[in-house]
Amino acid sequence: MTVLGLGLMGQALAGAFLADGRPTTVWNRSATKAEPLVARGATLAASARDAVAASPLVVVCVSNYEVVHELLDPLADVLAGRVLVNLTSGTSQQARETARWAERRGISYLDGVIIATPQGIGAADTLLFYSGPRPVFDRHEPTLRILGGTTTYLGADHALSSLYDMAILTIMWNVLNGFLHGAALVGTAHVPAAAFAPAARKGIATVADWLTGYADQIDSGRYPALDATIDTHVAAMDHLIHEAEFLGVDAELPRFVKVLAERAVTGGHGGDSYAAMIEQFRKTSGG
Amino acid sequence: MTVLGLGLMGQALAGAFLADGRPTTVWNRSATKAEPLVARGATLAASARDAVAASPLVVVCVSNYEVVHELLDPLADVLAGRVLVNLTSGTSQQARETARWAERRGISYLDGVIIATPQGIGAADTLLFYSGPRPVFDRHEPTLRILGGTTTYLGADHALSSLYDMAILTIMWNVLNGFLHGAALVGTAHVPAAAFAPAARKGIATVADWLTGYADQIDSGRYPALDATIDTHVAAMDHLIHEAEFLGVDAELPRFVKVLAERAVTGGHGGDSYAAMIEQFRKTSGG
Repeated sequence: MTVLGLGLMGQALAGAFLADGRPTTVWNRSATKAEPLVARGATLAASARDAVAASPLVVVCVSNYEVVHELLDPLADVLAGRVLVNLTSGTSQQARETARWAERRGISYLDGVIIATPQGIGAADTLLFYSGPRPVFDRHEPTLRILGGTTTYLGADHALSSLYDMAILTIMWNVLNGFLHGAALVGTAHVPAAAFAPAARKGIATVADWLTGYADQIDSGRYPALDATIDTHVAAMDHLIHEAEFLGVDAELPRFVKVLAERAVTGGHGGDSYAAMIEQFRKTSGG
Repeated sequence: MTVLGLGLMGQALAGAFLADGRPTTVWNRSATKAEPLVARGATLAASARDAVAASPLVVVCVSNYEVVHELLDPLADVLAGRVLVNLTSGTSQQARETARWAERRGISYLDGVIIATPQGIGAADTLLFYSGPRPVFDRHEPTLRILGGTTTYLGADHALSSLYDMAILTIMWNVLNGFLHGAALVGTAHVPAAAFAPAARKGIATVADWLTGYADQIDSGRYPALDATIDTHVAAMDHLIHEAEFLGVDAELPRFVKVLAERAVTGGHGGDSYAAMIEQFRKTSGG
Protein backbone atom coordinates (compact mmCIF):
# COMPACT_ATOMS: atom_id res chain seq x y z
CA MET A 1 0.00 0.00 0.00
CA THR A 2 0.86 3.65 -0.29
CA VAL A 3 0.91 6.24 2.46
CA LEU A 4 0.82 9.91 1.47
CA GLY A 5 1.77 12.39 4.16
CA LEU A 6 4.40 11.56 6.75
CA GLY A 7 3.60 13.73 9.71
CA LEU A 8 3.74 11.94 13.06
CA MET A 9 0.50 10.14 12.26
CA GLY A 10 1.42 9.26 8.66
CA GLN A 11 4.76 7.88 9.85
CA ALA A 12 2.93 5.74 12.41
CA LEU A 13 0.53 4.44 9.74
CA ALA A 14 3.34 3.50 7.35
CA GLY A 15 5.29 2.04 10.27
CA ALA A 16 2.39 -0.24 11.19
CA PHE A 17 2.16 -1.55 7.62
CA LEU A 18 5.92 -2.18 7.59
CA ALA A 19 5.77 -3.89 10.98
CA ASP A 20 3.15 -6.20 9.49
CA GLY A 21 5.50 -7.02 6.61
CA ARG A 22 3.46 -5.25 3.92
CA PRO A 23 5.21 -3.71 0.91
CA THR A 24 4.75 0.00 1.62
CA THR A 25 5.37 2.98 -0.64
CA VAL A 26 5.57 6.37 1.01
CA TRP A 27 5.66 9.97 -0.13
CA ASN A 28 5.91 13.27 1.67
CA ARG A 29 6.34 16.85 0.48
CA SER A 30 9.56 16.93 2.48
CA ALA A 31 11.34 13.65 1.69
CA THR A 32 13.59 13.67 4.79
CA LYS A 33 10.63 12.52 6.91
CA ALA A 34 10.63 9.28 4.91
CA GLU A 35 14.17 8.32 5.93
CA PRO A 36 13.39 6.30 9.08
CA LEU A 37 10.68 4.44 7.15
CA VAL A 38 12.98 3.72 4.21
CA ALA A 39 15.50 2.35 6.71
CA ARG A 40 12.74 -0.05 7.81
CA GLY A 41 12.03 -1.18 4.24
CA ALA A 42 9.62 1.36 2.82
CA THR A 43 9.92 2.48 -0.80
CA LEU A 44 10.16 6.24 -1.19
CA ALA A 45 8.35 7.33 -4.36
CA ALA A 46 9.89 10.09 -6.45
CA SER A 47 6.55 11.88 -6.71
CA ALA A 48 3.04 11.69 -5.29
CA ARG A 49 1.93 10.43 -8.72
CA ASP A 50 4.45 7.59 -8.58
CA ALA A 51 3.38 6.80 -5.03
CA VAL A 52 -0.28 6.51 -6.06
CA ALA A 53 0.63 4.42 -9.11
CA ALA A 54 2.54 1.96 -6.89
CA SER A 55 -0.45 0.51 -4.97
CA PRO A 56 -4.12 -0.35 -5.35
CA LEU A 57 -4.75 1.10 -1.85
CA VAL A 58 -3.72 4.68 -1.10
CA VAL A 59 -3.88 6.07 2.44
CA VAL A 60 -3.69 9.84 2.79
CA CYS A 61 -3.14 11.59 6.10
CA VAL A 62 -2.24 15.27 5.86
CA SER A 63 -3.04 18.49 7.79
CA ASN A 64 -6.49 19.19 6.36
CA TYR A 65 -8.81 18.63 3.40
CA GLU A 66 -7.46 21.65 1.54
CA VAL A 67 -4.08 19.90 1.43
CA VAL A 68 -5.80 16.65 0.40
CA HIS A 69 -7.32 18.32 -2.64
CA GLU A 70 -4.23 20.34 -3.49
CA LEU A 71 -2.32 17.05 -3.49
CA LEU A 72 -4.86 14.69 -5.10
CA ASP A 73 -6.89 16.78 -7.55
CA PRO A 74 -4.06 16.64 -10.13
CA LEU A 75 -3.76 12.88 -9.60
CA ALA A 76 -7.39 11.93 -10.23
CA ASP A 77 -6.48 10.08 -13.43
CA VAL A 78 -4.04 7.76 -11.66
CA LEU A 79 -6.31 7.40 -8.61
CA ALA A 80 -9.18 6.20 -10.82
CA GLY A 81 -9.82 2.50 -10.19
CA ARG A 82 -7.90 2.55 -6.91
CA VAL A 83 -9.08 2.76 -3.32
CA LEU A 84 -8.45 6.04 -1.53
CA VAL A 85 -8.57 5.93 2.27
CA ASN A 86 -8.56 9.44 3.70
CA LEU A 87 -7.53 9.62 7.36
CA THR A 88 -7.17 13.41 7.36
CA SER A 89 -9.22 15.25 10.00
CA GLY A 90 -12.04 17.37 8.64
CA THR A 91 -15.70 18.18 8.76
CA SER A 92 -18.62 15.99 7.70
CA GLN A 93 -19.26 18.41 4.84
CA GLN A 94 -15.69 18.04 3.58
CA ALA A 95 -16.01 14.25 3.76
CA ARG A 96 -19.21 14.30 1.69
CA GLU A 97 -17.72 16.74 -0.83
CA THR A 98 -14.59 14.64 -1.20
CA ALA A 99 -16.75 11.53 -1.66
CA ARG A 100 -18.61 13.27 -4.50
CA TRP A 101 -15.29 14.37 -6.02
CA ALA A 102 -14.01 10.77 -5.84
CA GLU A 103 -17.21 9.26 -7.22
CA ARG A 104 -17.15 11.51 -10.29
CA ARG A 105 -13.58 10.35 -10.98
CA GLY A 106 -14.10 6.61 -10.48
CA ILE A 107 -12.13 6.50 -7.25
CA SER A 108 -13.35 4.13 -4.51
CA TYR A 109 -13.39 6.29 -1.42
CA LEU A 110 -13.38 5.56 2.30
CA ASP A 111 -13.33 8.39 4.80
CA GLY A 112 -11.78 7.46 8.11
CA VAL A 113 -10.81 8.97 11.44
CA ILE A 114 -8.27 7.81 13.97
CA ILE A 115 -9.33 7.99 17.63
CA ALA A 116 -5.79 7.61 18.91
CA THR A 117 -2.40 9.24 19.16
CA PRO A 118 0.36 8.17 16.73
CA GLN A 119 1.78 6.00 19.55
CA GLY A 120 -1.47 4.02 19.59
CA ILE A 121 -1.40 3.05 15.90
CA GLY A 122 -1.26 -0.71 15.43
CA ALA A 123 -2.48 -1.62 18.91
CA ALA A 124 -5.33 -4.09 19.43
CA ASP A 125 -7.61 -1.61 21.20
CA THR A 126 -6.91 1.34 18.91
CA LEU A 127 -10.10 2.73 17.41
CA LEU A 128 -10.51 3.84 13.80
CA PHE A 129 -13.85 4.68 12.22
CA TYR A 130 -14.56 4.29 8.51
CA SER A 131 -17.49 5.31 6.34
CA GLY A 132 -18.17 4.82 2.65
CA PRO A 133 -19.17 1.88 0.46
CA ARG A 134 -19.44 -1.29 2.54
CA PRO A 135 -17.96 -3.63 -0.12
CA VAL A 136 -14.84 -1.45 -0.36
CA PHE A 137 -14.44 -1.51 3.41
CA ASP A 138 -15.04 -5.25 3.63
CA ARG A 139 -12.46 -5.99 0.94
CA HIS A 140 -9.76 -3.95 2.70
CA GLU A 141 -10.75 -4.49 6.31
CA PRO A 142 -7.87 -6.93 7.06
CA THR A 143 -5.38 -4.34 5.79
CA LEU A 144 -7.05 -1.46 7.63
CA ARG A 145 -7.14 -3.51 10.83
CA ILE A 146 -3.32 -3.45 10.84
CA LEU A 147 -3.64 0.21 11.84
CA GLY A 148 -5.86 -0.51 14.85
CA GLY A 149 -7.59 -3.59 16.17
CA THR A 150 -10.84 -1.77 16.88
CA THR A 151 -11.41 -0.73 13.28
CA THR A 152 -15.13 -0.04 12.96
CA TYR A 153 -17.34 0.47 9.90
CA LEU A 154 -20.07 3.05 10.44
CA GLY A 155 -22.10 3.12 7.23
CA ALA A 156 -22.28 4.27 3.63
CA ASP A 157 -22.67 7.99 4.40
CA HIS A 158 -19.13 9.34 4.15
CA ALA A 159 -19.96 11.97 6.78
CA LEU A 160 -20.29 9.38 9.52
CA SER A 161 -16.64 8.97 10.43
CA SER A 162 -16.19 12.72 10.84
CA LEU A 163 -19.42 12.99 12.84
CA TYR A 164 -18.31 10.17 15.12
CA ASP A 165 -14.93 11.86 15.46
CA MET A 166 -16.61 15.07 16.62
CA ALA A 167 -18.94 13.10 18.87
CA ILE A 168 -16.03 11.29 20.53
CA LEU A 169 -14.16 14.59 20.90
CA THR A 170 -17.08 16.26 22.65
CA ILE A 171 -17.30 13.23 24.94
CA MET A 172 -13.55 13.39 25.57
CA TRP A 173 -13.49 17.03 26.66
CA ASN A 174 -16.56 16.65 28.82
CA VAL A 175 -15.24 13.51 30.52
CA LEU A 176 -11.88 15.19 31.13
CA ASN A 177 -13.49 18.38 32.44
CA GLY A 178 -15.69 16.34 34.76
CA PHE A 179 -12.67 14.44 36.08
CA LEU A 180 -10.58 17.59 36.51
CA HIS A 181 -13.40 19.47 38.23
CA GLY A 182 -13.91 16.48 40.52
CA ALA A 183 -10.19 16.29 41.24
CA ALA A 184 -10.25 19.99 42.15
CA LEU A 185 -13.19 19.40 44.55
CA VAL A 186 -11.58 16.49 46.43
CA GLY A 187 -8.24 18.27 46.20
CA THR A 188 -9.54 20.83 48.70
CA ALA A 189 -9.32 18.02 51.28
CA HIS A 190 -5.76 17.27 50.12
CA VAL A 191 -6.77 14.14 48.20
CA PRO A 192 -4.13 13.51 45.50
CA ALA A 193 -5.58 13.21 42.00
CA ALA A 194 -4.00 9.74 41.82
CA ALA A 195 -6.04 8.67 44.87
CA PHE A 196 -9.22 10.08 43.31
CA ALA A 197 -8.66 8.55 39.85
CA PRO A 198 -9.88 5.00 40.68
CA ALA A 199 -13.14 6.34 42.14
CA ALA A 200 -13.53 8.64 39.14
CA ARG A 201 -13.04 5.71 36.78
CA LYS A 202 -15.58 3.67 38.71
CA GLY A 203 -18.03 6.61 38.53
CA ILE A 204 -17.41 7.02 34.80
CA ALA A 205 -17.95 3.30 34.21
CA THR A 206 -21.20 3.44 36.19
CA VAL A 207 -22.51 6.32 34.09
CA ALA A 208 -21.37 4.59 30.89
CA ASP A 209 -23.56 1.65 31.89
CA TRP A 210 -26.63 3.91 31.78
CA LEU A 211 -26.07 5.04 28.21
CA THR A 212 -27.76 2.13 26.50
CA GLY A 213 -30.94 2.73 28.48
CA TYR A 214 -30.79 6.46 27.84
CA ALA A 215 -30.16 5.82 24.15
CA ASP A 216 -33.32 3.73 23.95
CA GLN A 217 -35.26 6.58 25.55
CA ILE A 218 -33.77 9.07 23.08
CA ASP A 219 -34.70 6.88 20.11
CA SER A 220 -38.23 6.40 21.42
CA GLY A 221 -38.67 10.09 22.24
CA ARG A 222 -40.01 9.17 25.68
CA TYR A 223 -37.97 9.81 28.82
CA PRO A 224 -39.53 8.16 31.87
CA ALA A 225 -37.51 9.03 34.99
CA LEU A 226 -36.65 5.51 36.11
CA ASP A 227 -33.80 6.97 38.16
CA ALA A 228 -33.79 10.71 38.91
CA THR A 229 -35.85 13.47 37.31
CA ILE A 230 -34.21 16.53 35.79
CA ASP A 231 -35.83 18.52 38.63
CA THR A 232 -33.87 16.36 41.08
CA HIS A 233 -30.69 16.85 39.05
CA VAL A 234 -31.15 20.63 39.10
CA ALA A 235 -31.48 20.57 42.91
CA ALA A 236 -28.28 18.52 43.15
CA MET A 237 -26.55 20.91 40.73
CA ASP A 238 -27.43 23.70 43.15
CA HIS A 239 -25.74 21.77 45.95
CA LEU A 240 -22.65 21.35 43.79
CA ILE A 241 -22.56 25.05 42.90
CA HIS A 242 -22.79 26.03 46.56
CA GLU A 243 -20.17 23.47 47.55
CA ALA A 244 -17.81 24.69 44.83
CA GLU A 245 -18.33 28.32 45.87
CA PHE A 246 -17.78 27.43 49.53
CA LEU A 247 -14.59 25.53 48.71
CA GLY A 248 -13.24 28.16 46.34
CA VAL A 249 -13.32 25.73 43.41
CA ASP A 250 -14.54 26.79 39.95
CA ALA A 251 -18.34 27.07 40.04
CA GLU A 252 -18.70 28.15 36.43
CA LEU A 253 -18.76 24.60 35.07
CA PRO A 254 -21.63 23.43 37.32
CA ARG A 255 -23.43 26.74 36.71
CA PHE A 256 -23.24 26.12 32.97
CA VAL A 257 -24.45 22.54 33.46
CA LYS A 258 -27.37 23.88 35.50
CA VAL A 259 -28.32 26.49 32.88
CA LEU A 260 -28.65 23.69 30.32
CA ALA A 261 -30.72 21.55 32.69
CA GLU A 262 -32.97 24.48 33.64
CA ARG A 263 -33.75 24.99 29.96
CA ALA A 264 -35.01 21.40 29.85
CA VAL A 265 -37.17 22.16 32.89
CA THR A 266 -38.51 25.29 31.15
CA GLY A 267 -39.17 23.10 28.12
CA GLY A 268 -41.44 20.89 30.24
CA HIS A 269 -38.93 18.10 30.94
CA GLY A 270 -38.51 18.62 34.71
CA GLY A 271 -40.21 15.30 35.44
CA ASP A 272 -38.27 13.40 32.76
CA SER A 273 -35.02 11.49 32.97
CA TYR A 274 -31.74 13.18 32.04
CA ALA A 275 -32.02 11.60 28.58
CA ALA A 276 -34.54 14.35 27.72
CA MET A 277 -31.58 16.77 27.71
CA ILE A 278 -30.93 15.53 24.16
CA GLU A 279 -33.52 18.05 23.02
CA GLN A 280 -31.36 20.87 24.37
CA PHE A 281 -28.40 19.66 22.35
CA ARG A 282 -30.31 19.01 19.16
CA LYS A 283 -31.29 22.61 18.76
CA THR A 284 -28.88 25.46 18.12
CA SER A 285 -28.87 27.74 21.13
CA GLY A 286 -27.00 30.68 22.56
CA GLY A 287 -24.89 33.32 20.83
CA MET B 1 -29.44 -2.49 63.06
CA THR B 2 -31.74 0.51 62.95
CA VAL B 3 -32.74 2.52 59.90
CA LEU B 4 -34.18 6.00 60.47
CA GLY B 5 -36.00 7.54 57.51
CA LEU B 6 -37.96 5.40 55.09
CA GLY B 7 -38.04 7.36 51.88
CA LEU B 8 -37.33 5.27 48.78
CA MET B 9 -33.66 5.06 49.73
CA GLY B 10 -34.28 4.31 53.41
CA GLN B 11 -36.69 1.55 52.43
CA ALA B 12 -34.07 0.08 50.12
CA LEU B 13 -31.43 0.18 52.88
CA ALA B 14 -33.69 -1.53 55.42
CA GLY B 15 -34.79 -3.99 52.73
CA ALA B 16 -31.17 -4.97 52.03
CA PHE B 17 -30.53 -5.66 55.74
CA LEU B 18 -33.71 -7.76 55.90
CA ALA B 19 -32.77 -9.64 52.74
CA ASP B 20 -29.48 -10.50 54.44
CA GLY B 21 -31.39 -11.86 57.45
CA ARG B 22 -30.33 -9.10 59.86
CA PRO B 23 -32.67 -8.09 62.68
CA THR B 24 -33.75 -4.62 61.57
CA THR B 25 -35.59 -1.91 63.46
CA VAL B 26 -37.10 0.91 61.42
CA TRP B 27 -38.71 4.24 62.11
CA ASN B 28 -40.20 6.93 59.93
CA ARG B 29 -42.11 10.12 60.69
CA SER B 30 -45.03 8.64 58.78
CA ALA B 31 -45.33 5.05 59.99
CA THR B 32 -47.27 3.78 56.95
CA LYS B 33 -44.06 3.69 54.92
CA ALA B 34 -42.78 0.99 57.28
CA GLU B 35 -45.59 -1.45 56.47
CA PRO B 36 -43.95 -3.31 53.56
CA LEU B 37 -40.78 -3.68 55.64
CA VAL B 38 -42.68 -4.91 58.69
CA ALA B 39 -44.35 -7.48 56.42
CA ARG B 40 -40.80 -8.65 55.56
CA GLY B 41 -39.82 -8.96 59.23
CA ALA B 42 -38.70 -5.50 60.30
CA THR B 43 -39.55 -4.19 63.76
CA LEU B 44 -41.32 -0.84 63.70
CA ALA B 45 -40.20 1.24 66.67
CA ALA B 46 -42.81 3.37 68.43
CA SER B 47 -40.48 6.37 68.41
CA ALA B 48 -37.17 7.48 66.97
CA ARG B 49 -35.75 7.19 70.51
CA ASP B 50 -36.89 3.57 70.76
CA ALA B 51 -35.46 2.88 67.30
CA VAL B 52 -32.03 4.22 68.28
CA ALA B 53 -32.12 2.31 71.57
CA ALA B 54 -32.80 -0.94 69.72
CA SER B 55 -29.41 -1.26 67.94
CA PRO B 56 -25.71 -0.48 68.36
CA LEU B 57 -25.62 0.68 64.70
CA VAL B 58 -28.00 3.41 63.53
CA VAL B 59 -28.30 4.33 59.86
CA VAL B 60 -30.00 7.62 59.08
CA CYS B 61 -31.12 8.60 55.58
CA VAL B 62 -33.44 11.57 55.42
CA SER B 63 -33.97 14.59 53.11
CA ASN B 64 -31.15 16.79 54.38
CA TYR B 65 -28.90 17.57 57.34
CA GLU B 66 -31.43 19.97 58.87
CA VAL B 67 -33.79 17.03 59.23
CA VAL B 68 -30.92 14.90 60.59
CA HIS B 69 -30.31 17.39 63.40
CA GLU B 70 -33.99 18.05 64.07
CA LEU B 71 -34.38 14.29 64.49
CA LEU B 72 -31.16 13.38 66.30
CA ASP B 73 -30.24 16.39 68.44
CA PRO B 74 -32.84 15.42 71.08
CA LEU B 75 -31.59 11.81 70.99
CA ALA B 76 -27.90 12.51 71.65
CA ASP B 77 -28.08 10.85 75.07
CA VAL B 78 -29.30 7.54 73.66
CA LEU B 79 -26.98 7.79 70.62
CA ALA B 80 -23.93 8.12 72.90
CA GLY B 81 -21.82 4.98 72.71
CA ARG B 82 -23.50 3.84 69.50
CA VAL B 83 -22.38 4.12 65.88
CA LEU B 84 -24.25 6.62 63.73
CA VAL B 85 -23.96 6.13 59.95
CA ASN B 86 -25.36 9.14 58.13
CA LEU B 87 -26.26 8.46 54.50
CA THR B 88 -28.13 11.73 54.06
CA SER B 89 -26.93 13.94 51.18
CA GLY B 90 -25.27 17.15 52.25
CA THR B 91 -22.24 19.38 51.94
CA SER B 92 -18.72 18.71 53.18
CA GLN B 93 -19.21 21.49 55.73
CA GLN B 94 -22.36 19.84 57.10
CA ALA B 95 -20.52 16.53 57.36
CA ARG B 96 -17.69 18.11 59.34
CA GLU B 97 -20.12 20.00 61.60
CA THR B 98 -22.13 16.86 62.27
CA ALA B 99 -18.91 14.98 63.05
CA ARG B 100 -18.00 17.64 65.63
CA TRP B 101 -21.52 17.46 67.07
CA ALA B 102 -21.24 13.65 67.34
CA GLU B 103 -17.75 13.74 68.83
CA ARG B 104 -18.82 16.12 71.61
CA ARG B 105 -21.63 13.69 72.49
CA GLY B 106 -19.62 10.47 72.45
CA ILE B 107 -21.26 9.19 69.28
CA SER B 108 -19.09 7.22 66.81
CA TYR B 109 -19.85 8.85 63.48
CA LEU B 110 -19.43 7.75 59.87
CA ASP B 111 -20.54 10.01 57.06
CA GLY B 112 -21.48 8.14 53.90
CA VAL B 113 -22.87 8.73 50.45
CA ILE B 114 -24.65 6.36 48.13
CA ILE B 115 -23.64 6.52 44.45
CA ALA B 116 -26.67 4.56 43.29
CA THR B 117 -30.42 4.63 42.93
CA PRO B 118 -32.58 2.83 45.52
CA GLN B 119 -32.90 -0.04 43.01
CA GLY B 120 -29.13 -0.53 43.13
CA ILE B 121 -28.91 -1.00 46.91
CA GLY B 122 -27.53 -4.41 47.83
CA ALA B 123 -25.92 -5.13 44.46
CA ALA B 124 -22.29 -6.26 44.18
CA ASP B 125 -21.19 -3.28 42.07
CA THR B 126 -23.09 -0.64 44.02
CA LEU B 127 -20.79 2.09 45.27
CA LEU B 128 -20.99 3.70 48.71
CA PHE B 129 -18.32 6.02 50.13
CA TYR B 130 -17.63 6.38 53.84
CA SER B 131 -15.44 8.74 55.81
CA GLY B 132 -14.74 9.00 59.53
CA PRO B 133 -12.70 7.00 62.05
CA ARG B 134 -11.10 4.01 60.34
CA PRO B 135 -11.58 1.58 63.30
CA VAL B 136 -15.33 2.31 63.33
CA PHE B 137 -15.56 1.67 59.59
CA ASP B 138 -13.46 -1.50 59.81
CA ARG B 139 -15.61 -2.92 62.62
CA HIS B 140 -18.85 -2.37 60.68
CA GLU B 141 -17.61 -2.87 57.13
CA PRO B 142 -19.21 -6.35 56.74
CA THR B 143 -22.57 -4.88 57.73
CA LEU B 144 -22.18 -1.81 55.53
CA ARG B 145 -21.14 -3.99 52.61
CA ILE B 146 -24.65 -5.51 52.65
CA LEU B 147 -25.83 -2.18 51.22
CA GLY B 148 -23.42 -2.27 48.29
CA GLY B 149 -20.55 -4.50 47.30
CA THR B 150 -18.30 -1.60 46.32
CA THR B 151 -18.31 -0.01 49.76
CA THR B 152 -15.20 2.18 49.93
CA TYR B 153 -13.50 3.89 52.87
CA LEU B 154 -12.04 7.28 51.98
CA GLY B 155 -10.32 8.55 55.10
CA ALA B 156 -10.73 10.07 58.54
CA ASP B 157 -11.86 13.52 57.34
CA HIS B 158 -15.65 13.32 57.48
CA ALA B 159 -15.90 15.74 54.54
CA LEU B 160 -14.45 13.21 52.12
CA SER B 161 -17.58 11.24 51.33
CA SER B 162 -19.51 14.40 50.50
CA LEU B 163 -16.62 15.73 48.41
CA TYR B 164 -16.41 12.46 46.50
CA ASP B 165 -20.18 12.58 46.03
CA MET B 166 -19.92 16.04 44.47
CA ALA B 167 -16.93 14.96 42.41
CA ILE B 168 -18.79 11.94 41.05
CA LEU B 169 -21.84 14.11 40.33
CA THR B 170 -19.82 16.62 38.33
CA ILE B 171 -18.31 13.71 36.40
CA MET B 172 -21.78 12.24 35.84
CA TRP B 173 -23.31 15.38 34.35
CA ASN B 174 -20.29 16.05 32.17
CA VAL B 175 -20.17 12.47 30.86
CA LEU B 176 -23.91 12.55 30.16
CA ASN B 177 -23.71 15.95 28.45
CA GLY B 178 -20.82 14.74 26.32
CA PHE B 179 -22.76 11.63 25.31
CA LEU B 180 -25.95 13.58 24.57
CA HIS B 181 -24.10 16.22 22.57
CA GLY B 182 -22.35 13.46 20.65
CA ALA B 183 -25.66 11.69 20.04
CA ALA B 184 -27.10 14.97 18.71
CA LEU B 185 -24.13 15.34 16.33
CA VAL B 186 -24.36 11.84 14.84
CA GLY B 187 -28.15 12.12 14.95
CA THR B 188 -27.94 14.68 12.13
CA ALA B 189 -26.94 11.74 9.90
CA HIS B 190 -29.92 9.74 11.23
CA VAL B 191 -27.75 7.54 13.46
CA PRO B 192 -29.95 6.21 16.29
CA ALA B 193 -28.58 6.92 19.76
CA ALA B 194 -28.61 3.16 20.39
CA ALA B 195 -26.25 2.67 17.43
CA PHE B 196 -23.96 5.42 18.73
CA ALA B 197 -23.93 4.22 22.36
CA PRO B 198 -21.34 1.41 21.92
CA ALA B 199 -18.87 3.78 20.23
CA ALA B 200 -19.55 6.37 22.92
CA ARG B 201 -18.85 3.80 25.62
CA LYS B 202 -15.64 2.77 23.89
CA GLY B 203 -14.62 6.43 23.66
CA ILE B 204 -15.42 6.99 27.32
CA ALA B 205 -13.43 3.92 28.32
CA THR B 206 -10.47 5.14 26.26
CA VAL B 207 -10.50 8.53 27.98
CA ALA B 208 -10.92 6.86 31.38
CA ASP B 209 -7.69 4.97 30.68
CA TRP B 210 -5.83 8.29 30.45
CA LEU B 211 -6.89 9.50 33.89
CA THR B 212 -4.21 7.75 35.88
CA GLY B 213 -1.49 9.36 33.77
CA TYR B 214 -3.17 12.76 33.96
CA ALA B 215 -3.59 12.35 37.73
CA ASP B 216 0.16 11.77 38.09
CA GLN B 217 0.79 14.96 36.11
CA ILE B 218 -1.64 16.88 38.32
CA ASP B 219 0.02 15.63 41.50
CA SER B 220 3.47 16.49 40.17
CA GLY B 221 2.38 19.92 38.91
CA ARG B 222 4.08 19.21 35.57
CA TYR B 223 2.03 18.61 32.43
CA PRO B 224 4.21 17.41 29.54
CA ALA B 225 2.08 17.02 26.41
CA LEU B 226 2.75 13.34 25.71
CA ASP B 227 -0.40 13.25 23.57
CA ALA B 228 -1.90 16.56 22.40
CA THR B 229 -1.19 20.09 23.62
CA ILE B 230 -3.99 22.36 24.82
CA ASP B 231 -3.25 24.49 21.73
CA THR B 232 -4.09 21.45 19.59
CA HIS B 233 -7.23 20.83 21.62
CA VAL B 234 -8.35 24.44 21.12
CA ALA B 235 -7.95 24.08 17.35
CA ALA B 236 -10.02 20.88 17.42
CA MET B 237 -12.63 22.63 19.58
CA ASP B 238 -12.92 25.24 16.84
CA HIS B 239 -13.61 22.46 14.33
CA LEU B 240 -16.30 21.07 16.60
CA ILE B 241 -17.92 24.48 17.06
CA HIS B 242 -18.03 25.06 13.31
CA GLU B 243 -19.34 21.55 12.69
CA ALA B 244 -22.07 22.00 15.31
CA GLU B 245 -23.05 25.36 13.85
CA PHE B 246 -23.11 23.92 10.33
CA LEU B 247 -25.26 20.99 11.44
CA GLY B 248 -27.61 23.10 13.54
CA VAL B 249 -26.62 21.27 16.71
CA ASP B 250 -26.02 23.12 19.99
CA ALA B 251 -22.66 24.92 19.78
CA GLU B 252 -22.87 26.46 23.23
CA LEU B 253 -21.39 23.43 24.98
CA PRO B 254 -18.23 23.29 22.82
CA ARG B 255 -17.97 27.10 23.00
CA PHE B 256 -17.97 26.88 26.79
CA VAL B 257 -15.39 24.08 26.68
CA LYS B 258 -13.23 26.24 24.43
CA VAL B 259 -13.50 29.29 26.71
CA LEU B 260 -12.12 27.19 29.57
CA ALA B 261 -9.29 25.84 27.41
CA GLU B 262 -8.43 29.29 26.07
CA ARG B 263 -8.01 30.50 29.64
CA ALA B 264 -5.41 27.79 30.13
CA VAL B 265 -3.65 29.01 26.98
CA THR B 266 -3.75 32.58 28.29
CA GLY B 267 -2.33 31.21 31.55
CA GLY B 268 0.68 29.91 29.64
CA HIS B 269 -0.44 26.27 29.32
CA GLY B 270 -0.94 26.13 25.54
CA GLY B 271 1.98 23.74 25.14
CA ASP B 272 0.93 21.54 28.08
CA SER B 273 -1.25 18.45 28.20
CA TYR B 274 -4.96 18.74 29.00
CA ALA B 275 -4.14 17.84 32.62
CA ALA B 276 -2.98 21.45 33.08
CA MET B 277 -6.68 22.42 32.89
CA ILE B 278 -6.85 21.43 36.58
CA GLU B 279 -5.55 24.91 37.35
CA GLN B 280 -8.63 26.45 35.75
CA PHE B 281 -10.90 24.36 37.95
CA ARG B 282 -8.96 24.92 41.16
CA LYS B 283 -9.54 28.63 41.12
CA THR B 284 -12.93 30.29 41.48
CA SER B 285 -13.76 32.03 38.25
CA GLY B 286 -16.61 33.73 36.50
CA GLY B 287 -19.69 35.43 37.92
